[in-house]
Amino acid sequence: MGRNNLTNYYAPTDVIFGPGAEMQLGKALKKYGAKRVLVHYGSERIVKNGFLGKLLALIDEEGIYHVEFGGVVPNPRLSLAKQGIELYRKENLDFILAIGGGSVIDSAKCIAYGTCYDGDVWDIYSRKADPVAASPLGCVLTMAAAGSEMSDSSVITNEDGWLKRGFSSDYIRLKFALMNPELTMTLPPYQTAAATVDIMMHTMERYFVKDTIPLTEEFQLALCRKVKEAGAKALQDPKDYNARADLMWGSSVSHNSFMNLGNSVRGDWASHQIEHELSGIFDVAHGAGLAVIWPAWAKYILKDAPEKFAKFGYRVLDVEPTGDALADGKAAIEAMEEFYRSIGMPTRLSEMNIFPTEEQIERMAESCTFFGTRTLGGDLRTLYKEDLKAIYYLAK
Amino acid sequence: MGRNNLTNYYAPTDVIFGPGAEMQLGKALKKYGAKRVLVHYGSERIVKNGFLGKLLALIDEEGIYHVEFGGVVPNPRLSLAKQGIELYRKENLDFILAIGGGSVIDSAKCIAYGTCYDGDVWDIYSRKADPVAASPLGCVLTMAAAGSEMSDSSVITNEDGWLKRGFSSDYIRLKFALMNPELTMTLPPYQTAAATVDIMMHTMERYFVKDTIPLTEEFQLALCRKVKEAGAKALQDPKDYNARADLMWGSSVSHNSFMNLGNSVRGDWASHQIEHELSGIFDVAHGAGLAVIWPAWAKYILKDAPEKFAKFGYRVLDVEPTGDALADGKAAIEAMEEFYRSIGMPTRLSEMNIFPTEEQIERMAESCTFFGTRTLGGDLRTLYKEDLKAIYYLAK
Repeated sequence: MGRNNLTNYYAPTDVIFGPGAEMQLGKALKKYGAKRVLVHYGSERIVKNGFLGKLLALIDEEGIYHVEFGGVVPNPRLSLAKQGIELYRKENLDFILAIGGGSVIDSAKCIAYGTCYDGDVWDIYSRKADPVAASPLGCVLTMAAAGSEMSDSSVITNEDGWLKRGFSSDYIRLKFALMNPELTMTLPPYQTAAATVDIMMHTMERYFVKDTIPLTEEFQLALCRKVKEAGAKALQDPKDYNARADLMWGSSVSHNSFMNLGNSVRGDWASHQIEHELSGIFDVAHGAGLAVIWPAWAKYILKDAPEKFAKFGYRVLDVEPTGDALADGKAAIEAMEEFYRSIGMPTRLSEMNIFPTEEQIERMAESCTFFGTRTLGGDLRTLYKEDLKAIYYLAK
Repeated sequence: MGRNNLTNYYAPTDVIFGPGAEMQLGKALKKYGAKRVLVHYGSERIVKNGFLGKLLALIDEEGIYHVEFGGVVPNPRLSLAKQGIELYRKENLDFILAIGGGSVIDSAKCIAYGTCYDGDVWDIYSRKADPVAASPLGCVLTMAAAGSEMSDSSVITNEDGWLKRGFSSDYIRLKFALMNPELTMTLPPYQTAAATVDIMMHTMERYFVKDTIPLTEEFQLALCRKVKEAGAKALQDPKDYNARADLMWGSSVSHNSFMNLGNSVRGDWASHQIEHELSGIFDVAHGAGLAVIWPAWAKYILKDAPEKFAKFGYRVLDVEPTGDALADGKAAIEAMEEFYRSIGMPTRLSEMNIFPTEEQIERMAESCTFFGTRTLGGDLRTLYKEDLKAIYYLAK
């Protein structure tokens, strides 16, 4: 390994982690100057089971005004975020609290951008405008997967054309994140499994690059190994605190830029982009989509970095070294597929009853490259439209 | 492992890492609103070799006013910091830039507290007063060891009685840290070795606790192993970029609270406190002092947590498991001493020509416990004055 580019680690989110972390909500909002809060959430489940009420009581205790705004769905929608922007303005609010996981936080981030931008917030996600500010945000995390609680990224889906677009900037780093792993113990197994895939993938995107510093590579491998273990354990015993804690902290660390410190590039991100087009059209769970896309991407890219795949196999997946990096790399991809299957994740589109037409594949590959205006991939290999089509075909 | 207390991770420092990172100085100062900067440093070496001039030119380019203030020595002194406080006030400055390692940063932190406190800044370090603010800080890191660049802690020595005291708060978290590992390639071998000890120790203090989450324990072990390797490599080849990078990033991560996320307690810290008294009186390099104190502490504490010591041995020091945790723990301590010796560090006070009198040991043990007003140690074992004396004797 050699000398790398300048990299940045900036993750200013104030994390409170452990049992009962959500009980610090009133104090956290006060600490960060919130006076009029948009309380953003997803399904009405947290209304019915009393969880929202418990949190609102904590906010009331501090004399902080709040307006509730729910309805976020997985792959959060632009139209809802736009309603949130209107509500925030109408009510003259000054802080956005997300209660939920990545979808709610990403919807909140879109609102945060939109409330500080005069035009259509989609301009930012479609790269027509640069944000110059965002409203302050915090969260009570109830799902661990996307890592949005500490990341600079957000993803939103525009129903007009079902375009799913991500945008990253430091403006929407959360002020605080209250993380109680116990809150994730009641998640459905499918969601826990999909989360495991997603968390590992955020680090895998950063691991599969040409070069990094040895300490960061060690952290990357350590995270992938422990999150894999934790995912399997949480599925066996949903109330395993340590497994839930590893998944939750793993989700944050995996995506807060810690795992690319010293990297030659921030990450590869091709698998993510390829999957985004997929879940934009077919509305599959992001983690499940990744479990399908990654093996296809990996098989396509393997010959460009066999040693990297082989090492991943040895350290994360207990692949036995044979002395042949290409063979071991192939074994690593197979072991990964086996792990995905073992936690009930699909590894082919057909297993999700998705049979994309040629036209759909063409369209996804087109959209992935922003209609030919960009390529995909990190520094292992640059991917063009034809490469993307080949990967979608491999995923069928 | 079970459920733990609430823990906090908050490390808002904006890190720019890699070759040439210091060239971002002007931009970083501007980004964080600096207009009138106290440029704080140690020896005149950086004046003579032109490094300071290069940095001042970058500051000038942004039209930022600056006043230079050098003279920091290892185990930085209260009297110098007080001069800095006066200068900062007289010149009506608004930002403190530290150029150096832990000593300069800690001196800068003391100035940062003092400029926002009306009384004697020692009141804060001696727990007579709580700070309510601190002036903003940034650094160009030229030495990697103390981790002060991302930590909330600072240590200062009061020449009046040679009392060495630490104080921690979020007020003195740096705004930015520019980290170029290449700048550390010219450090004397002794300093590199002492740094290796110190960096590992910041994580060891956090590892030797009753309980944490598996992911954090894995990160702790990964850091200790890689920093140990990097220290040995940097001594063999001072220009090994990856070794210098691992030491530098290791120094930050080891002490920025990342390594105690999910811990039952923030850390043990007995070794550090015991060493502080030592280097307060004898003015030894902090890392060398730790290499002497840790084995003595470890032998004293081993029976309280044999499995923890054994695991450390297996994962960090290649100790072969025998099935007997106590024996393996003992082997781990011996392997650690062997490593210390291999990098030229002392493991006994006598090797540093320090032969403390009974009276001096009594005095250090007294001072360590704040004259009987506090105990030392984390949750593995509480240490009282008599325990501390025993540890100092073991270190002779």
